[in-house]
Amino acid sequence: MSTHVSHSAMSADFPGLLKRLGNRLPAHCILTRAEDTRPYECDGLSLFRETPPVVVLPEDEAQVVEVVQACRAFDIPIVARGAGTGLSGGATPHAQGVVLGLAKLNRILKIDVDAATALVEPGVRNLAISEAAASYGLYYAPDPSSQIACSIGGNIAENSGGVHCLKYGLTVHNVLRVRMVTAEGEIVELGSDAPDAPGVDLLAAFIGSEGMLGIVTQATVKLIPRPACARVVMASFPSVESAGEAVANIIASGIIPAGLEMMDKRATHMVEPFVQAGYDLDAEAILLCESDGTDEEVEDEILRMKAVFASAGASRLQVSASEEERLRFWAGRKNAFPAAGRVSPDYYCMDGTIPRRHLARVLNAIVAMEEDFGLHCANVFHAGDGNLHPLILFDANIPEQVEKAERFGAAILELCVEVGGTITGEHGVGIEKINQMCVQFTRQELNFFLALKRGFDPYGLLNPEKVIPTLARCAEYGRMHVHAGQIRFPDLPRF
Amino acid sequence: MSTHVSHSAMSADFPGLLKRLGNRLPAHCILTRAEDTRPYECDGLSLFRETPPVVVLPEDEAQVVEVVQACRAFDIPIVARGAGTGLSGGATPHAQGVVLGLAKLNRILKIDVDAATALVEPGVRNLAISEAAASYGLYYAPDPSSQIACSIGGNIAENSGGVHCLKYGLTVHNVLRVRMVTAEGEIVELGSDAPDAPGVDLLAAFIGSEGMLGIVTQATVKLIPRPACARVVMASFPSVESAGEAVANIIASGIIPAGLEMMDKRATHMVEPFVQAGYDLDAEAILLCESDGTDEEVEDEILRMKAVFASAGASRLQVSASEEERLRFWAGRKNAFPAAGRVSPDYYCMDGTIPRRHLARVLNAIVAMEEDFGLHCANVFHAGDGNLHPLILFDANIPEQVEKAERFGAAILELCVEVGGTITGEHGVGIEKINQMCVQFTRQELNFFLALKRGFDPYGLLNPEKVIPTLARCAEYGRMHVHAGQIRFPDLPRF
Repeated sequence: MSTHVSHSAMSADFPGLLKRLGNRLPAHCILTRAEDTRPYECDGLSLFRETPPVVVLPEDEAQVVEVVQACRAFDIPIVARGAGTGLSGGATPHAQGVVLGLAKLNRILKIDVDAATALVEPGVRNLAISEAAASYGLYYAPDPSSQIACSIGGNIAENSGGVHCLKYGLTVHNVLRVRMVTAEGEIVELGSDAPDAPGVDLLAAFIGSEGMLGIVTQATVKLIPRPACARVVMASFPSVESAGEAVANIIASGIIPAGLEMMDKRATHMVEPFVQAGYDLDAEAILLCESDGTDEEVEDEILRMKAVFASAGASRLQVSASEEERLRFWAGRKNAFPAAGRVSPDYYCMDGTIPRRHLARVLNAIVAMEEDFGLHCANVFHAGDGNLHPLILFDANIPEQVEKAERFGAAILELCVEVGGTITGEHGVGIEKINQMCVQFTRQELNFFLALKRGFDPYGLLNPEKVIPTLARCAEYGRMHVHAGQIRFPDLPRF
Repeated sequence: MSTHVSHSAMSADFPGLLKRLGNRLPAHCILTRAEDTRPYECDGLSLFRETPPVVVLPEDEAQVVEVVQACRAFDIPIVARGAGTGLSGGATPHAQGVVLGLAKLNRILKIDVDAATALVEPGVRNLAISEAAASYGLYYAPDPSSQIACSIGGNIAENSGGVHCLKYGLTVHNVLRVRMVTAEGEIVELGSDAPDAPGVDLLAAFIGSEGMLGIVTQATVKLIPRPACARVVMASFPSVESAGEAVANIIASGIIPAGLEMMDKRATHMVEPFVQAGYDLDAEAILLCESDGTDEEVEDEILRMKAVFASAGASRLQVSASEEERLRFWAGRKNAFPAAGRVSPDYYCMDGTIPRRHLARVLNAIVAMEEDFGLHCANVFHAGDGNLHPLILFDANIPEQVEKAERFGAAILELCVEVGGTITGEHGVGIEKINQMCVQFTRQELNFFLALKRGFDPYGLLNPEKVIPTLARCAEYGRMHVHAGQIRFPDLPRF
């Protein structure tokens, strides 16, 4: 997969850049020795690696501006990086670029209790916001599984979700304003406290733009009151079909669960020995369905959830009896990725979305692909919003398995598009899914993306060669597909 | 105000355009006689009028494509129009352009009960979607006051809200996909069924773009289950300060009301003789606060709402005792605009937003402005999300009052920006607020808007001279302000 990253020799004027940066930033903020820069060679998508020539770790916004202006002066690409937990290679270094790490901008500047907002720097960890707001009874709702480590800047770059985003929305629904440094080195603020944005909604376009449009230096995020009560129903099903039907019926009944997750048998068997979450290992699939609110609301909603599951054929129903048990149920789901690392030398986490009604069809197709590719796949699934996370298990020391894992992953994503879904639900495109963007989008749509990109970054210095494929790249990818006997681009019907 | 619209003589090749259109569309779809085109001279912002040279009313998507391609061939601007109920002049005709009316594309193509979506054409009325979905227990949530007449295409253009958008979101949160004709006359679909959009979120940027980026021909909208129960608390307050405090406390308590509206004394006195809604005419301000859900949830939440209002000093609390009474409470609010038309020859509805904590300050400032401008102003207010609708009462037959109303409105909007708010909450910018865009946004942000606009519409044919001011226009507006003794542009601090 490393073919995506150019390994050409340094031709950019790094000595000139370093001289300028050395005059403007403290020396300890600039890393150039291989032993210092190697930790930045990849993000959470470790299949793509590139040791960056220079890593800069500014300590405030003025220094971020200095770095951007210096890179602009020397025409050197900039790859912004938060905590490095991203799963699609959005922070994979550029062979001739600077990695701009924002970890030191980690202050919580203000908690405004009246407005229920927090003003934070991009390096603040997701969970740290909720910790700081806890004494006011408030918290920040989006909760990616990596929330203990991932930063809000990275969450904004990737429009991160989490198990509770079914009810509380993705990052884009929970960030009100962003202050950022443009490719010109100017400060711009996008968004407002108002529900609508006058003119075009640039904030929504910015959130999820993966470092291509600007570098965040501050964000105002929404805080919401911590619900008085939360409980989880764990439901066992004899088939993925019946579990899928239960999901559809929950949504159709008008319940909006705080979370609604599915795990298949391979996933529960992978997780249970590691976490002892108390999962039913006989079930073909389990659902975790959370209700939150006042005690009365939760009691009422849990009864309705149980009734829906029972009539969809649930073989076992268990409601968390304590906060400790609720957290244990979730711990299994949230630790599915590390658990995969325990049973397999490597795993490749996919992130496609599908219309909920195709759940069983897609899971069965994945089972058939396991056969085809000779690799196992465990499935965890944000069932409520149709966001699949198949975990393909493989051994990176066997080159043939690496290549199979990549093809298996691409096949899953293209199946998602085929049934009317998308190639990413919450992990972003990054470097990983750039070819699948050619499958997802038409030439005209890609041109719109490129126009927006050029408007923000006319020099192409911000995270180049990520997210938006050039039409030439798509043509190349199309030819590869033609060689494999299928014409995928540009004539694939989208829906 | 008509200075914004150019009245120059026709120089475009309309005969050539009409000949081409005549070959491709039925004759009854093309209007050119003044008595036929005059009804299209304005939308709901009747202060701006321009009889369009040509109105085209296509009957299907293929005809929309024909019209766009023909206008492109003859370099003639296109102003798309829905039901013409917009309040910011988004559909004000262009003196040398074509009005493209979408009223005949009015089919509901599909109700998908499993996915809880409806696929509709742009001319479908907002309320007609809910009527069609009612037999499945579903409805479309955004409910602008004009919902009986306004079209979903217009709602998408303006990102319309409504009294229930506090809980259920604006149009942007309830539209999943848009199919549109580009400025090139090509068909593009934006959006997906998935919670996140791969790449940049162009759908969010498109919704609210007021006909500048493309012409909608189909939309997939979200349907949600009709709640089993809904009730409204009507609370009276002895001052706008105490009512404002009650609003802040409701939100701080973690309640998300289905609607939370405020009306000041002038507004209730204006509405009550017209609607007999049962409003308390002694109160300085009233709040309408709705709870919806299951019977148990509503009962519990209404108790909590009443407790918050009582402790904020409510002088009277009344809960709707029947569905009929609930609708009567809302009828007063929803008919505030027609009621204004009864007590004043003309009214000018503003649409600013402010941080909730500045509510009393802004309402008191508006009272002072009534004195300054010698005009009355009634205030209705989506209090829960900080969206003001001051109704400036005036007589258009007195030229001096027209000019005063315009300046009064501009002063209110610029006050909104000053306290950290915005110049539009849900009515759009259109032609009305284009100067205030110079106050709201920096030069760099306006450049980003223009870049996106050029990406979608390189020829500038789609609704030109609306929404996004040119920098030259802002410089001119800045000079006007300097003449009035205030430098507003470009150095106004935004927050």
